[in-house]
Amino acid sequence: MKGRIREYGVVIGSLRPGPGNRITDVPGVTVGHCTLDDGPVKTGVTAVLPHGGNLFRDKVLAVAHVINGFGKTAGTIQIEELGTIETPILLTNTLSVGRVSDALVEVMLEQNPEIGVTTGTVNPVVGECNDGYLNDIRGLHVQKEHVRVALSSAAADFAEGAVGAGTGMSCYGLKGGIGSASRVIELGSTEYTLGVLVLSNFGRQQDFMLHGMPAGAWIAELERSPEAPEKGSIIFILATDLPLSERQLKRVSKRCAVGLTRTGSFIGNGSGDVVIGFTTGNRVQHDEPNAVVSLQMLNENEIDAAFRAAAEAAEEAILNSMTAAKTTVGRDGHDRKGLADYLDAVLTKSRTRA
Amino acid sequence: MKGRIREYGVVIGSLRPGPGNRITDVPGVTVGHCTLDDGPVKTGVTAVLPHGGNLFRDKVLAVAHVINGFGKTAGTIQIEELGTIETPILLTNTLSVGRVSDALVEVMLEQNPEIGVTTGTVNPVVGECNDGYLNDIRGLHVQKEHVRVALSSAAADFAEGAVGAGTGMSCYGLKGGIGSASRVIELGSTEYTLGVLVLSNFGRQQDFMLHGMPAGAWIAELERSPEAPEKGSIIFILATDLPLSERQLKRVSKRCAVGLTRTGSFIGNGSGDVVIGFTTGNRVQHDEPNAVVSLQMLNENEIDAAFRAAAEAAEEAILNSMTAAKTTVGRDGHDRKGLADYLDAVLTKSRTRA
Amino acid sequence: MKGRIREYGVVIGSLRPGPGNRITDVPGVTVGHCTLDDGPVKTGVTAVLPHGGNLFRDKVLAVAHVINGFGKTAGTIQIEELGTIETPILLTNTLSVGRVSDALVEVMLEQNPEIGVTTGTVNPVVGECNDGYLNDIRGLHVQKEHVRVALSSAAADFAEGAVGAGTGMSCYGLKGGIGSASRVIELGSTEYTLGVLVLSNFGRQQDFMLHGMPAGAWIAELERSPEAPEKGSIIFILATDLPLSERQLKRVSKRCAVGLTRTGSFIGNGSGDVVIGFTTGNRVQHDEPNAVVSLQMLNENEIDAAFRAAAEAAEEAILNSMTAAKTTVGRDGHDRKGLADYLDAVLTKSRTRA
Amino acid sequence: MKGRIREYGVVIGSLRPGPGNRITDVPGVTVGHCTLDDGPVKTGVTAVLPHGGNLFRDKVLAVAHVINGFGKTAGTIQIEELGTIETPILLTNTLSVGRVSDALVEVMLEQNPEIGVTTGTVNPVVGECNDGYLNDIRGLHVQKEHVRVALSSAAADFAEGAVGAGTGMSCYGLKGGIGSASRVIELGSTEYTLGVLVLSNFGRQQDFMLHGMPAGAWIAELERSPEAPEKGSIIFILATDLPLSERQLKRVSKRCAVGLTRTGSFIGNGSGDVVIGFTTGNRVQHDEPNAVVSLQMLNENEIDAAFRAAAEAAEEAILNSMTAAKTTVGRDGHDRKGLADYLDAVLTKSRTRA
Repeated sequence: MKGRIREYGVVIGSLRPGPGNRITDVPGVTVGHCTLDDGPVKTGVTAVLPHGGNLFRDKVLAVAHVINGFGKTAGTIQIEELGTIETPILLTNTLSVGRVSDALVEVMLEQNPEIGVTTGTVNPVVGECNDGYLNDIRGLHVQKEHVRVALSSAAADFAEGAVGAGTGMSCYGLKGGIGSASRVIELGSTEYTLGVLVLSNFGRQQDFMLHGMPAGAWIAELERSPEAPEKGSIIFILATDLPLSERQLKRVSKRCAVGLTRTGSFIGNGSGDVVIGFTTGNRVQHDEPNAVVSLQMLNENEIDAAFRAAAEAAEEAILNSMTAAKTTVGRDGHDRKGLADYLDAVLTKSRTRA
Repeated sequence: MKGRIREYGVVIGSLRPGPGNRITDVPGVTVGHCTLDDGPVKTGVTAVLPHGGNLFRDKVLAVAHVINGFGKTAGTIQIEELGTIETPILLTNTLSVGRVSDALVEVMLEQNPEIGVTTGTVNPVVGECNDGYLNDIRGLHVQKEHVRVALSSAAADFAEGAVGAGTGMSCYGLKGGIGSASRVIELGSTEYTLGVLVLSNFGRQQDFMLHGMPAGAWIAELERSPEAPEKGSIIFILATDLPLSERQLKRVSKRCAVGLTRTGSFIGNGSGDVVIGFTTGNRVQHDEPNAVVSLQMLNENEIDAAFRAAAEAAEEAILNSMTAAKTTVGRDGHDRKGLADYLDAVLTKSRTRA
Repeated sequence: MKGRIREYGVVIGSLRPGPGNRITDVPGVTVGHCTLDDGPVKTGVTAVLPHGGNLFRDKVLAVAHVINGFGKTAGTIQIEELGTIETPILLTNTLSVGRVSDALVEVMLEQNPEIGVTTGTVNPVVGECNDGYLNDIRGLHVQKEHVRVALSSAAADFAEGAVGAGTGMSCYGLKGGIGSASRVIELGSTEYTLGVLVLSNFGRQQDFMLHGMPAGAWIAELERSPEAPEKGSIIFILATDLPLSERQLKRVSKRCAVGLTRTGSFIGNGSGDVVIGFTTGNRVQHDEPNAVVSLQMLNENEIDAAFRAAAEAAEEAILNSMTAAKTTVGRDGHDRKGLADYLDAVLTKSRTRA
Repeated sequence: MKGRIREYGVVIGSLRPGPGNRITDVPGVTVGHCTLDDGPVKTGVTAVLPHGGNLFRDKVLAVAHVINGFGKTAGTIQIEELGTIETPILLTNTLSVGRVSDALVEVMLEQNPEIGVTTGTVNPVVGECNDGYLNDIRGLHVQKEHVRVALSSAAADFAEGAVGAGTGMSCYGLKGGIGSASRVIELGSTEYTLGVLVLSNFGRQQDFMLHGMPAGAWIAELERSPEAPEKGSIIFILATDLPLSERQLKRVSKRCAVGLTRTGSFIGNGSGDVVIGFTTGNRVQHDEPNAVVSLQMLNENEIDAAFRAAAEAAEEAILNSMTAAKTTVGRDGHDRKGLADYLDAVLTKSRTRA
C-alpha cells in the first residue's frame, strides 16, 4: 500500500518539499509516538520535539493561533505572552490532556531540578482531538508512562496515519490521524525549511476536496454514506528554521487555515482548530546573561514564500494523514475506512469525468 | 454578455441562494454606487446601508474581523468594543478613506443635530482597496459629493463589477470590483438570509481557482502572463437577518475567509482583508429607555448552516465580481481583462482535460 | 483577629457590598476548599460553582480575559469561542493544573454518562498560581481526591486567606491567598450582584498600596525587607447575575485589572493574571430544543455601574485575601507574614503622617 | 504659574525622568502643535514625529493597544499586522479624524512620489478625543493646513496643556489636554529612555486621585460640582529607544493603563483609550535589500523596568496635562478650570487631613 498522496501522482502546490517531505526536515525536529490499539482502545500520544537539547533552558520562539476554539489545547496563554515554547509538544485525545500535562510536568521536573525551587514553573504544551467515535475515550486509557514512551521514541523518522495520538482519529468520515509535509524556501542562496505535522480529526465526508476534486462526494455516493454533521478538530504543528519574529511567525502560522479549507472544510462549529508554530531560527535562553539580544527576522517583503509554504504543507499534511491511515474498527463496531481504499477509483473518476 | 458565474453553469456550494443571489436579499439592505470613470480616473464610492431608517439612532449589531491587516479600514475599533454599526458602510480607494470619512461625518451631522451637542460623536465605517494599478490614485479624485451620490442612489437593485469603489480594482490579474451573492438558511419553518458583498482586489493570476479548476494557470498560459507578486486586498460586507449575538456574528464572519481561499488565495502579505458583518436581527437603540433589553441568538448547535452560507456566499461573490467586471484600460495604459472573456475557454478546457 | 479590610475601617469605593460582601452573594454561587497544610506542604484546591445544578447541561455565559499571560490556566480557548462554562472552576498550584484537570474530567464523566458516547467532550476550567515560595511545589502533593473534597464542600459560606488553593500563596511579600468581595448594582427597582473571588500571589512589598497609602513601603521600612523582583500571579473569578452578553461580560471582566493596579501592582512580567467571568443571568442548555433563543443584555448606557463594581470588588477582594491570611511558615523556613500583623501600625501612621 | 506636577513637590514613582521629563527625551522624537482657540472654537492638531527622517522609507517598530474601544483612532489595523509606523502620528478631535487623515495622505504623497505609482499606499495614523464640551465640534474647524502647521512646528521643545489637539479637552471635570513625562531605564552601563505623551479627555471629577489623594472628591466638595457620568477618552503615545520586539513593545504599551487607573479612572464605557507605541531602537527599511535582517530585543527578564517606566510616565503625563492646562471657557459658556487653581488647597488638605 502506498502511504503518501504524492505516490498517487497528486502534487499539492508549486513549492519543492524537503528531502523527507515532513516536519522533521527542519533540522533538529523529531517526532515520537505511543500507540494504544487494543479492541475499543484506539488512542495514544504523539510528541514533537523542537530540538534535541534542553528545551526549558534553550527555548524556541513560538506562537499559538486558534482557528476555531472548540478545543482544550493547553499552554497557549503563555506561548502568546512570552513567545516561547519550553517543553516538547504533546498530542493526545481530548479527555487525556490533563493527565498528559501532569506527566509532562513530571518529566520536566526530573530534567530541571531548579524548577519550582530557584526558578519559576514550566508551561506544558498539549494539543488534542476527540477520538471518541473509534476510541473508548471515557475509559481514559492514556497513562503517564505513555508520555514517556512517546518522548523517548522521538526521531527524525516517524510513522503517519493511525499511530500515536492519531490512532483513533477520523477525517472527512474516513480514517484520519497523523500526517506531515514540508516545503523548502529559498532566500538568495540560503535554503530554509518549513514543515507541518497535523493531527486530523474533522470534516463531513461530503465536503472532502482532493486537489480540487469533490472526492468526498464521490465516495459518499459510492458508499451511500449517510449525511452527518461536521465535527471534530485539527491540530497543526508548524516548524521552521526561518528566522522570524513572533509577529511574523504568527502570520505564517495563520496560513495553515488556507490548507485546511482547501481540503473542503468550512471550519465547523465543533472544531477545535489550533496551530502551534515555532522557529528554531530564534532561541531564548532561560538564563540569558545579556540585557539586549539579537533576533533575526525575515524581510517582510519576502514573507509570501513562507505563507505559501505553510498553506501547501498544511494541505498536503492533511492528505498524507488520510492516505497513510489504514481502515480501523474501534469501539462498538464503529469503523473508518482508509482513503487509500478509494484513491484509485477517485483518480480514475477524475480523469474521466468529462 | 452574461454577468454572473451561475449563468455559466457554475454552482458554488449546496445551499440555495436568495431571490436575487445578492446582499440586498437581506430585507432592508440597500447598495449604491458613485462611479468615476474618466481616462486614468478609475475609482469611486460604494455604500451599503444596513436598513433604510436612521442608523445612528437605530443601530445594528456588528463585528469587524481582520483576516490580514495590510489595510486602512476605518471604524473597526468601536465596532469591536460596542458591537454596533451606526452609519452606512462606505467603500472606496485606499488613499480616499480620510476624505470619505470626513464626508460621511458631515452627512451624519446633518441627519442628527444632537451629535456633538447633547450626545457623543459618530463612528464612520469606511473600507478600502488600492486601485492604483488602473486608477490615478495619487490624484485623489474622490470628492465629498461622491459620497452623497453613492448614498442617495442606494437601492435593492445594484450593479456589480467595475462600478463604484470597484471601478479600478483588479483580481487575480484580471478585472475585479464589486460582487455579491446570498444564501437562504432554514431554521424549522423560518427562512433567514445571509448575503455577502465584496470589493475584490487581490491575487496572483496563476493562483486563481474556479470551482476547483486551475483557471488562473490556464489563463496565464494562454496569455503568457508574466509572474507577478501577490498583491492587493478584499473587503467583505456580510449581512444577515439571522438573530446572532456579537460572538456568533464574529464566528460567522470569519468564514468569509473560507470562500476567499477557495478561489486560490493564500492571503498574501500585501492584503488588507477585512470583514464587516452585521445582523439586522438585533438592533440597539441610541436612547434605549430600558435598563435590560432582549437579544435573540441562534442555538449554537445550528450555527454550521450559517458558517456554510458565509463560505459559499463569499466565494460566489468574488467570482461574480470578476464575471461582471468588463475589461478596463486605466492609467498609463495599464489594463485588466474581464474574466468573462476567458470563461468559455476555461469551461471547455475543464470538460476536456482528461 | 479581624479578618476583613472593612473591619479596620477601610472602605473601598462607593458602591454598597452584598450581604456577605463576597462572591457567594450572587445567588446560587458556592465555594469549597481542600487545604493541604503539613510542614512544607502548603497548597490545595479551591472550587467555585456557578450554580448548584448540572453545569454541563445548564451552562452559564462566560468569558476569559488574560491581563498578563505568564500563566497556565486551562480551558480559556473554548470559553472564548463558545462563551460558556460547563464545569466548576477549580484553582490550584501551577504544577498541579494537569492533575486537577484530569480529576475534574473524571468527575464530569461520572455525572454525565453521555459525554464521549452520544455527545462531545467537556472543557475543564482550572486556574493557578505558583505557591513555590512556601510550598514544596515539586512534590506535586495535590491528588485527585482533593478535587472531590473541594467540590463536595462547596457552600455559600467559605473561608478566606490561607485556605484551599490559597494555602501557600504570597502577595506583596506578605501572605496572600483567597479573598472575596461583592457589590450591588441597582437598575431601576431591581438589584443585581457582582462578586469577585481572587487567588492572590503577586507583587513586590515596596509597591503595595492600601487605599492610597504606601503601606508596602512603610512595612518594608519597618521590616528592613530586602528588594525583591515582582513575581507571581493572580486569578480573578468574577460572578454576576446581571444579564450581560458575552461582549459585555468581557468588558466588565477587564475592569478587574483596575482593582489590581490600585493595590500597587504594575502587572509585572512574571504575572499570570487571568480573569474568568460568568453570569448566571444567561444560561445555555446543552440540548437546547429551539433554533433561536432569547438572551438578556444590559443597556450599554448603564454598563459603567458594572465596571465600577468590578473594579471595587476586585480591589477589596485582594485586600481581604491579605487581611484574612495568617502568617505562614512553609518549606525551607520560608515565611510570609499576615497583613493583619501590620494593619494597626499602618493605619496609625497614615493618620499621623502629616 | 507652575506648569508641571513635580514643581508642586509631587513625585510619581521611583524611576528617574529624562532631562526634560517628556517624550522628546527619546532622541529624535519631536512634537508640534496647531492650536485653534477663538471663542467657541477650541480645538487643534498635535503631531508626534518618531524621528526627523523620511518615516515612510525608514519605519519604526510600532504597536497599537486598545484599552477601551469607544474611539475612532485611524491606522491601527496595519500597525498591528506589520508592526510599523510609517507616518507622523497626529492627534485631533473625533470628528476631524477623516480630514486630518486626508491631509496627512497629501503630505505623504508630496514627500514620496513613488507612493501609488511604483510602490503601495501609506497608512496614516491619527488619534482623537471628543472635545465637544468646550469646542464647537460640529463646526469641523480643523482644516488641512492646520496639519501642516502642526507638522512643521515639531521640535524637541513643546508646550503642554490647552494646546494643539488638547485645546478643548477636559479631564476629571477639569481642563485636560496635552501632557508628557519620561523615565530613564538603565541596562548595565547603557541608558535608554521611555517617554509618554497623552491627550487627556476623560474621567469624573469625583474619581480623580492625585498620588493616592482623593483630590477630585475634595475639589468636587469645594465646588459643589454636580455628579456627572464618566465620559471621554485618552490617547497615549509611548516612545522609547529601548530595543524591543513587537511583542515586547505591546506588553510595555499595555502598562500605560496602569498609570491611567492610578489617577482614578475605572476606564468607563464612553472611553476611547488607545495606546500607540513605537521604538526607535528597531527600524524597518521600506526597500530593505537583505532577505534576513537583525532586530535587537530586550532580555525578557529585564522587562519589568520598562513596565514600571511606562506606568509611571503615563500617570505623570496625565497629571502634567492637567497642571499645565489653564482654565478655559468654550462654547455655550461651558468652562473647565485648571487643576493648578486647586493644587495648593489640595496639597494643604492632604498634609492636614489627619
